[in-house]
Amino acid sequence: MGRVYNFSAGPAVLPEEVLQAAANDMLDYKGCGMSVMEMSHRSKMFEEIITEAEQDLRDLMGIPDNYRVLFLQGGGSMQFAQVPLNLMKTGVADYIVSGSWSKKAWKEAKKFGDARCIASSEDKTFSYIPDVDALEIDDDADYVYICENETIYGTKYHKLPDTKGKPLVADVSSCFLSEPVNVEDYGVIFGGVQKNVGPAGVAIVIIREDLIPEEELPNVPTMLQYKTQADAKSLYNTPPCWGIYICGLVFKWLKANGGLEGAKRRNVEKAQLLYDYLDQSKLFKATAAKEDRSLMNIPFVTGDKDLDAKFVAEAKAAGLENIKGHRSVGGMRASIYNAMPKAGVEALVEFMKKFEAENA
Amino acid sequence: MGRVYNFSAGPAVLPEEVLQAAANDMLDYKGCGMSVMEMSHRSKMFEEIITEAEQDLRDLMGIPDNYRVLFLQGGGSMQFAQVPLNLMKTGVADYIVSGSWSKKAWKEAKKFGDARCIASSEDKTFSYIPDVDALEIDDDADYVYICENETIYGTKYHKLPDTKGKPLVADVSSCFLSEPVNVEDYGVIFGGVQKNVGPAGVAIVIIREDLIPEEELPNVPTMLQYKTQADAKSLYNTPPCWGIYICGLVFKWLKANGGLEGAKRRNVEKAQLLYDYLDQSKLFKATAAKEDRSLMNIPFVTGDKDLDAKFVAEAKAAGLENIKGHRSVGGMRASIYNAMPKAGVEALVEFMKKFEAENA
Repeated sequence: MGRVYNFSAGPAVLPEEVLQAAANDMLDYKGCGMSVMEMSHRSKMFEEIITEAEQDLRDLMGIPDNYRVLFLQGGGSMQFAQVPLNLMKTGVADYIVSGSWSKKAWKEAKKFGDARCIASSEDKTFSYIPDVDALEIDDDADYVYICENETIYGTKYHKLPDTKGKPLVADVSSCFLSEPVNVEDYGVIFGGVQKNVGPAGVAIVIIREDLIPEEELPNVPTMLQYKTQADAKSLYNTPPCWGIYICGLVFKWLKANGGLEGAKRRNVEKAQLLYDYLDQSKLFKATAAKEDRSLMNIPFVTGDKDLDAKFVAEAKAAGLENIKGHRSVGGMRASIYNAMPKAGVEALVEFMKKFEAENA
Repeated sequence: MGRVYNFSAGPAVLPEEVLQAAANDMLDYKGCGMSVMEMSHRSKMFEEIITEAEQDLRDLMGIPDNYRVLFLQGGGSMQFAQVPLNLMKTGVADYIVSGSWSKKAWKEAKKFGDARCIASSEDKTFSYIPDVDALEIDDDADYVYICENETIYGTKYHKLPDTKGKPLVADVSSCFLSEPVNVEDYGVIFGGVQKNVGPAGVAIVIIREDLIPEEELPNVPTMLQYKTQADAKSLYNTPPCWGIYICGLVFKWLKANGGLEGAKRRNVEKAQLLYDYLDQSKLFKATAAKEDRSLMNIPFVTGDKDLDAKFVAEAKAAGLENIKGHRSVGGMRASIYNAMPKAGVEALVEFMKKFEAENA
């Protein structure tokens, strides 16, 4: 069997060109006689890989010089602790809870200080983004925290909150590099790469320099201090070299395909295809509030659990994989990240049409 | 150019069969239509990968049922904090400092409690393993900590310390799976895999069940709690899937080649080749105490810095890569892990003979 269309929410589809390049160079990277997995992280060859990866990411996102880029381990979940451990100085932080991931981050932060939930959309199963125009930001808050795209509920901030001058910390795991961003709107941007950027095992943290603690924090594990990782340029200990290498290949693939403007154009086109169909369908219904819809994760339901299960099974048989929704929402979810080709979304919509006709 | 002989201390050489398998399955793992990097960590396919990897490791090491196996992120350096955070109950622990890595672990533990150095070999640049027969173990110590093989200095414990009943915690990063072990001699065995087992980005922790805290630890990041990771079978969040997959392939390679008995036989043979030559050489000298020599990392010097540099440069030109020693010892270091073929050590010894003849 050939390649399937993989709608997994993460780990997720990667560009075929990237996989091909990784396979080709597996035993002998650029004639150096070894695999990237075998290289010393202190070698000149790996230094080139990580330096180029950072530069390409800076080019793609337009990251200003006063922001540092860190390649870390532990995924987004480790950042849920690292952010408060490093950024809470007064001991207060404000969280907007728009789904499972921001809720998890908020609960984790409460271990380390007074993390306050200043807005939530839990009243309607997180199907919308809370109103961010009239937030009551605490005067003593060290930062305001959001999860910019909630993978499970398929919602996205299309307008950033007014943080009244407080640094905005955003978990962008499921919308990383999906469209252009203005990095200066944020204090910290972080994401696990395993959804839209690379393989699981790398988290990228983009942090404004003045938010990195100047002194070592006495009771915080050395590995979790942003200062340690920034001072050592992500090489305090052996980094996840292979993952960084694959992210670097993805950055080059994005640059060769119109950068983040190009990514956005393709993502809008793909999402539109699916939303347009959903909005006129009599069988399927998109679950997220229209004005807060994500370009990346699109949950939908039929309203009938048995029919949902039938759809998932038949879709799988047709080469449309991982279309089952998260148990919190039920039904289906199509994650259509950067590397999902338009043909994949077209195939999905065609399949849905057929299924709707057969099950009307 | 073909494959080189890579004597890197880590990340290090991997079996060519493993790299070949990884390349072959890159775009379509076992006919599932996707790469291992693209698979949901909750998928049946990945569950098989991680379950088989754990079982193969259990088979290789003879891990008893009352020990848990965890696949974590952050490398050995993250364990330097995780061990005291999880295991210090009285707040006291005893460390044997036999090199840079155990010293780093000891210093990190001091952040979280009264970590005491009960023996050290720093007086002679860590060229030997401290006497472990007459240790003054503290009555209230929660554990005794060692680094079983010091990568930089090339020393190895050939006899484990008498811990007087306290759990022994061992960092085995650079001797992982190099020879059979009796797991029951340890409370915790951990290692970054990037030296002898797989690619950087995975740490394996083998821990006796009763040492895992029964309750959640209130002020410890969720990700750093052994309980979290054990309860979730290493799937609390997205694990480093690709790295676990490669480790699994290495486990199968070891099983197919005589298990750890086979590995030891080959490792002794390879190390003997190099030590025998070093012991009779008039130019080169091994730096570690004879009785504490490592099978994995073999540092040696000429005593002349310029000559050392010349050797390293000429060795590189001859396809013997990463033979430069660590700055703490100087000179050269040959790391000859499981995946280094005997032919590589033979080539090195031949090259040293030639160099000695030319530079006598």
